[in-house]
Amino acid sequence: MKRLFVGLLASASAIAFVALAAETKTMGDPSPIYGVTLPEGYRQWQLIAPAEEAEPLNELRAVVGNATAIDAYRKRQMPFPDGSVLVKVAWKRVRSDEFEPASVPGDATTVQVMVKDSKKYASTGGWGFGRFVDGAPADEEQHRTCFACHEARVMAHDYVFTRWAH
Amino acid sequence: MKRLFVGLLASASAIAFVALAAETKTMGDPSPIYGVTLPEGYRQWQLIAPAEEAEPLNELRAVVGNATAIDAYRKRQMPFPDGSVLVKVAWKRVRSDEFEPASVPGDATTVQVMVKDSKKYASTGGWGFGRFVDGAPADEEQHRTCFACHEARVMAHDYVFTRWAH
Repeated sequence: MKRLFVGLLASASAIAFVALAAETKTMGDPSPIYGVTLPEGYRQWQLIAPAEEAEPLNELRAVVGNATAIDAYRKRQMPFPDGSVLVKVAWKRVRSDEFEPASVPGDATTVQVMVKDSKKYASTGGWGFGRFVDGAPADEEQHRTCFACHEARVMAHDYVFTRWAH
Repeated sequence: MKRLFVGLLASASAIAFVALAAETKTMGDPSPIYGVTLPEGYRQWQLIAPAEEAEPLNELRAVVGNATAIDAYRKRQMPFPDGSVLVKVAWKRVRSDEFEPASVPGDATTVQVMVKDSKKYASTGGWGFGRFVDGAPADEEQHRTCFACHEARVMAHDYVFTRWAH
């Protein structure tokens, strides 16, 4: 029984390690200025909220978070702890041809990432930003606009627009 | 080593069992006609796609699925296997007061559930339906409309509107 328990512990540790490794692993080139990369497996992350963006972008969006970010939302922990990662996935908004009142995701457009590291990104509210199109980071000019907008509009919510959809 | 391996297996089985139990556990009263209940923990399920519904409902929506349903989407497995559960969560669509072009989730409206059981629901394409408001099932009349609409519009996609958002 004791050996089984040790086995269980070892197994749980192994699983925890794999889960942690999966979350911190990233893919592709880093964003300019911030060096933020696309986190691997973000499409499996838990939903924080959907959103819609009007013309000219005309997009449907979904913001998901890693376990650290989701936990902070659930506990209403503010500011978000280091290690929080938020990913906004965006698609063109397309009228459904099967149900007229509905709009659904069309082609993918951008994936936008925010990574909390209060030391590394101390000059930008503790957040690093990355904006990706087809897996490749957008140019430096686009990345210069991220923090100014978040700072001007949602500084009181730790620079994060998205609220939990209850 | 052998004992550790047995321990790992036992642990994996225990975890699989817990995961399965968590997925099949439900809460609240069942829907009329179908006896479908709200699956516990659906808010943690993986996103299939967001959607938007025009006036008069004016809603933002997110469709999530349990592991069986997500696996079927990823493998493009059609029809969905028994045990697949889809949940559509809907909120009023509200203009963001922090960023004008954005609309975000307001109050929750309905939660709609589809459960695949090809024997139990043989007369409705293998799907049972549940529509819930504040956790309580809607009336029988509303549930009479579910299958007729799905049958008329998306029979060729195993009666499911939502496509995977790539």
